[in-house]
Amino acid sequence: MTQQRLNVGLIGVGRIGKVHGEHIAYRIPRARLVAISDVNLAAAQEFGKRLGVDRVEADHLAVLNDPAIDAVVICSPTDLHATMIEEAAKAGKQIFCEKPIARTLKEIDTALDAVEQAGVKLQIGFNRRFDANFARVRKAILAGEIGEPHLLHIISRDPGPPPIEYVKVSGGMFLDMTIHDFDMARFLAGDEVEEVYAAGAVRVDPAIGAAGDLDTALVTLKFAGGLLCVIDNSRKAVYGYDQRVEVLGSAGGATVSNNHPNTAVISDATTVHRDLPLNFFMDRYLDSFLVEMAAFVDAVLDGTPTPVTGVDGRAAVALGIAARRSHEENRPVRLDEIEER
Amino acid sequence: MTQQRLNVGLIGVGRIGKVHGEHIAYRIPRARLVAISDVNLAAAQEFGKRLGVDRVEADHLAVLNDPAIDAVVICSPTDLHATMIEEAAKAGKQIFCEKPIARTLKEIDTALDAVEQAGVKLQIGFNRRFDANFARVRKAILAGEIGEPHLLHIISRDPGPPPIEYVKVSGGMFLDMTIHDFDMARFLAGDEVEEVYAAGAVRVDPAIGAAGDLDTALVTLKFAGGLLCVIDNSRKAVYGYDQRVEVLGSAGGATVSNNHPNTAVISDATTVHRDLPLNFFMDRYLDSFLVEMAAFVDAVLDGTPTPVTGVDGRAAVALGIAARRSHEENRPVRLDEIEER
Amino acid sequence: MTQQRLNVGLIGVGRIGKVHGEHIAYRIPRARLVAISDVNLAAAQEFGKRLGVDRVEADHLAVLNDPAIDAVVICSPTDLHATMIEEAAKAGKQIFCEKPIARTLKEIDTALDAVEQAGVKLQIGFNRRFDANFARVRKAILAGEIGEPHLLHIISRDPGPPPIEYVKVSGGMFLDMTIHDFDMARFLAGDEVEEVYAAGAVRVDPAIGAAGDLDTALVTLKFAGGLLCVIDNSRKAVYGYDQRVEVLGSAGGATVSNNHPNTAVISDATTVHRDLPLNFFMDRYLDSFLVEMAAFVDAVLDGTPTPVTGVDGRAAVALGIAARRSHEENRPVRLDEIEER
Amino acid sequence: MTQQRLNVGLIGVGRIGKVHGEHIAYRIPRARLVAISDVNLAAAQEFGKRLGVDRVEADHLAVLNDPAIDAVVICSPTDLHATMIEEAAKAGKQIFCEKPIARTLKEIDTALDAVEQAGVKLQIGFNRRFDANFARVRKAILAGEIGEPHLLHIISRDPGPPPIEYVKVSGGMFLDMTIHDFDMARFLAGDEVEEVYAAGAVRVDPAIGAAGDLDTALVTLKFAGGLLCVIDNSRKAVYGYDQRVEVLGSAGGATVSNNHPNTAVISDATTVHRDLPLNFFMDRYLDSFLVEMAAFVDAVLDGTPTPVTGVDGRAAVALGIAARRSHEENRPVRLDEIEER
Repeated sequence: MTQQRLNVGLIGVGRIGKVHGEHIAYRIPRARLVAISDVNLAAAQEFGKRLGVDRVEADHLAVLNDPAIDAVVICSPTDLHATMIEEAAKAGKQIFCEKPIARTLKEIDTALDAVEQAGVKLQIGFNRRFDANFARVRKAILAGEIGEPHLLHIISRDPGPPPIEYVKVSGGMFLDMTIHDFDMARFLAGDEVEEVYAAGAVRVDPAIGAAGDLDTALVTLKFAGGLLCVIDNSRKAVYGYDQRVEVLGSAGGATVSNNHPNTAVISDATTVHRDLPLNFFMDRYLDSFLVEMAAFVDAVLDGTPTPVTGVDGRAAVALGIAARRSHEENRPVRLDEIEER
Repeated sequence: MTQQRLNVGLIGVGRIGKVHGEHIAYRIPRARLVAISDVNLAAAQEFGKRLGVDRVEADHLAVLNDPAIDAVVICSPTDLHATMIEEAAKAGKQIFCEKPIARTLKEIDTALDAVEQAGVKLQIGFNRRFDANFARVRKAILAGEIGEPHLLHIISRDPGPPPIEYVKVSGGMFLDMTIHDFDMARFLAGDEVEEVYAAGAVRVDPAIGAAGDLDTALVTLKFAGGLLCVIDNSRKAVYGYDQRVEVLGSAGGATVSNNHPNTAVISDATTVHRDLPLNFFMDRYLDSFLVEMAAFVDAVLDGTPTPVTGVDGRAAVALGIAARRSHEENRPVRLDEIEER
Repeated sequence: MTQQRLNVGLIGVGRIGKVHGEHIAYRIPRARLVAISDVNLAAAQEFGKRLGVDRVEADHLAVLNDPAIDAVVICSPTDLHATMIEEAAKAGKQIFCEKPIARTLKEIDTALDAVEQAGVKLQIGFNRRFDANFARVRKAILAGEIGEPHLLHIISRDPGPPPIEYVKVSGGMFLDMTIHDFDMARFLAGDEVEEVYAAGAVRVDPAIGAAGDLDTALVTLKFAGGLLCVIDNSRKAVYGYDQRVEVLGSAGGATVSNNHPNTAVISDATTVHRDLPLNFFMDRYLDSFLVEMAAFVDAVLDGTPTPVTGVDGRAAVALGIAARRSHEENRPVRLDEIEER
Repeated sequence: MTQQRLNVGLIGVGRIGKVHGEHIAYRIPRARLVAISDVNLAAAQEFGKRLGVDRVEADHLAVLNDPAIDAVVICSPTDLHATMIEEAAKAGKQIFCEKPIARTLKEIDTALDAVEQAGVKLQIGFNRRFDANFARVRKAILAGEIGEPHLLHIISRDPGPPPIEYVKVSGGMFLDMTIHDFDMARFLAGDEVEEVYAAGAVRVDPAIGAAGDLDTALVTLKFAGGLLCVIDNSRKAVYGYDQRVEVLGSAGGATVSNNHPNTAVISDATTVHRDLPLNFFMDRYLDSFLVEMAAFVDAVLDGTPTPVTGVDGRAAVALGIAARRSHEENRPVRLDEIEER
């Protein structure tokens, strides 16, 4: 593309849609927010007014069919993602879509086929890859600072469980929460998983168990190249949003710690203490959302591959499905078992 | 004021002016950037175009005389600050002005008199008060978490000295660099200084000494209430921007550490290490600039006092003058010695 | 017992025997080292001379049959432990024995039966329980500081693999190295394991694989009470001896970091760094060896239970056997599967 | 000397005397504790019995006159140090003496003259030089890791003030407490102080002020080579024994943190916290006492200079005298002003 700025249409102005919209409007010089759509037209209008975007639609197809729009950012509910990717691909738009693409491999494959046939770009919203902490660990691995990776830990704990009504429709913890960690594991490993073993439990809230889900898990991944990985998930870390990784390699190790609102340490007659880590994912990962969107804009304008592809989006879902089966059958599950094509 | 949003005019679009301008335009919902002025009209026009601000002037008086403008943000060169404060006050504008107000108490007093007579608000740009780390220490003191303060350390070191041409016109390290630390000392102490002893040296670059300035100093402050404080300054910390404080109180202590670009720690066969602290003041203090400007907007719209007043701006300059005299005469200097009124 | 000091005989003056001997001789006021035995009589004599112990024997039975000796500390090679425990029990001695008791449950049970029939005390040398870091985590759990434990990580990595000749006779990594971690898991959990899943790999040295062993592993433990635990083992962490745990509980979490030779942090133009963690287990755990032996002496003199019993020694071996089977058969193995009685 | 082990006599079995005695008896293979003296003969006898030392005297001269004794360790009250050094030197003994040598330069000079004339070695008990943290900082400076030192901070705070009766006879905070920091400053700087400015206050306890002493101080030192140093003292840090240094050099910086009893960090719903630093100087510095005594023994047996000389002991006292004068006269005091020779 020879154009200077990317004209972007935003589909969905929920919480994450607003974040992406503000970033495109104000903080990514190479992009321009030109249209907004949401089935809740009033919400779209209010957000458009605040950002000075005149074109506001209730129907996302009006955005997709506008030839002045280069790219769309899909922030609709999860069960609409795959269909909208298909529609956007057929309309020739460049696509950024929130995760997960869908909850079945069949739906995902249909969407990815459409993207491939249209020859458009697709980026999936695994924002944590763009977080400065995790990106630094990835860099350490790529640069050979710690040698060949041998062992990987991913600690990923929410400050508290979502409402039980959400749990019931979430697709289960492995697809709703661990999916980010599956992507992180692949991102850091630079390799594919061959086998999954998931040990899960209900420790946080019996209501989650009654809803057929888990709230606590250790998921072991065996990568093709020999790396062993364990993902540690809990729906509740009372001290805040606990998001860390640690890698042991043949020549060293890398760890990250949580992000805190400040660095102050207070010592009194009882303890040495500091404030809790950031508690809300939007505070913790705000910068990463900006960096991922700027990366999408750059990839489209510069004609380079997007840094998180449809294949990445599919792989994380496949791992979620394998983990669920492993837990249900209490045995290691090979990834090739769950291919549905 | 009953109005919903504050109409702000920006005077000066240098580095710090641009930061304030973007914050007002995009990130402070209660403010609106309506005019920009700079003697370099082309620079003002380019910046206005980027932010969608139509009113752009070469002459700041055009901004000051516009009745549609409620408040001005003065980011001109230091030697214009006092005069522009006076002009803005006479024009009835609410005023945010970068530090220092001026380099002599006489000029400062003239400007502050004008502000007082006009009954407008004035906030001085001591942004570090709004930094999350230092604000947390202040909160610890105010909340009684560490009891009565006994000893205060302020470590404030630049990553490297400014160009020697700048050094020559800077007013000297105490007024150019330590001034921020004098304000921090008063902010954290919640008290006034009675006596200053400055031990200075030229260790970083002999050219700084040849220009009549210092590059390394320890400044001891005795506060009225008995608190002892030492400020540690260097023009060059090769590892980055070193900005810390530490307070010992009767019931505890508080310290902060530097801000780093990420939390990753790498261990290899040689050391356990992490990336250097942030190196550039704009990266280190970016959030504080946003918070200070939002606080100014709130103070004006809500009719509350500004959090950094003209008195604060004056006190820091007085301390800089006292420190210089202490160093020149190698003796403790009482603050009442340097009053020029 | 009403006596003031415990008369102790030491069996075996290898590396760990010397540590225990010096502690008893010099640093545990309630104990007195009165006899030393080693098949290498010259080594025993030299050590006895240094410590001022006159009674030195080549045959440990001479020590066991001396009525003036209250307790023995068994530091012989592993394959002699069970027999010597039996002999010491029959001789009515109080017994401290290095880990593991044996490598089969049958041998262990025979030894423990002898101890039970003799009514003597037995303490197994799981010294890490007495390390200040891990003891503090245990205390946090017991005191309810972090609520009910949900997830437990044990990171246990050697600075480098042992000689390959040792690997061949070691009984395998799970019994030689992980055995400490199995005990730590039980110690911290305060509960028993029901199921083990071991994912192992050869990443450090192919020669270890050729010898039929592993050098890298993730072992998942499911405890009866629902706690999930993962043990992370590597034979080689180039940065030093990596010994950490971390627990997530319903009301908080606890972590420890490694012990370093000093707290100095150096910042230069490249990184912020510190010296590597302690590299040698004797440096890292020296204090714990003293505390465990003092605890044994106290238990005997005060007539209280020893803090690490024969049951503890047996359980760790059972877990090692289960882990090996899990790895060989690539499936979760229940502990009740491996009972051989 | 060609002998294998140094025969040492201990003079004074108070708290520090006991520490040195145990180290010599048990933990320094090249030394042998052969005699103990204390005016409190019963105390000396009890201690001798525990350590297996037969020769116990009430009169230290009996020890000094015993030709079988090579070296003496003087742990008597401060006001006897100088005289005993003189006596020991005349008796031809190698001398380790606790700090301070005396509280006047005249007494010190008399003692040092005797040492010089006798040609014996003298080591003063500035144990902190042998602490692993501070030694690592010294090494960083010597090895050029941080370039030329520009700024030095020494934070030295007691967990609580001594009894007021002790304060009254202590010689004042600068000679009683800061003396260690003066030595640390010289040790780290590798240079001599030219000028001292002391800002002191009574903040901890008015009774200390009523006794004519201070409890809080900032002491600025100007070294001959240009290094600026500030010592921060308080008689009371409620969170424990606060002992840190930090150096900024032309090529980097070095800091140390306090020593804690364990590395455990607990996060709960309120804070992230850890246990307080070690509270008692004997816990904090125990290792350093062992290292310093071993260094003394090595110096004598190997015929090398002692690592802390009489000159070092004198210099710290001179700095204490200068600091007191500076505080009394509220002005910088040059070291050459206080020479009494």
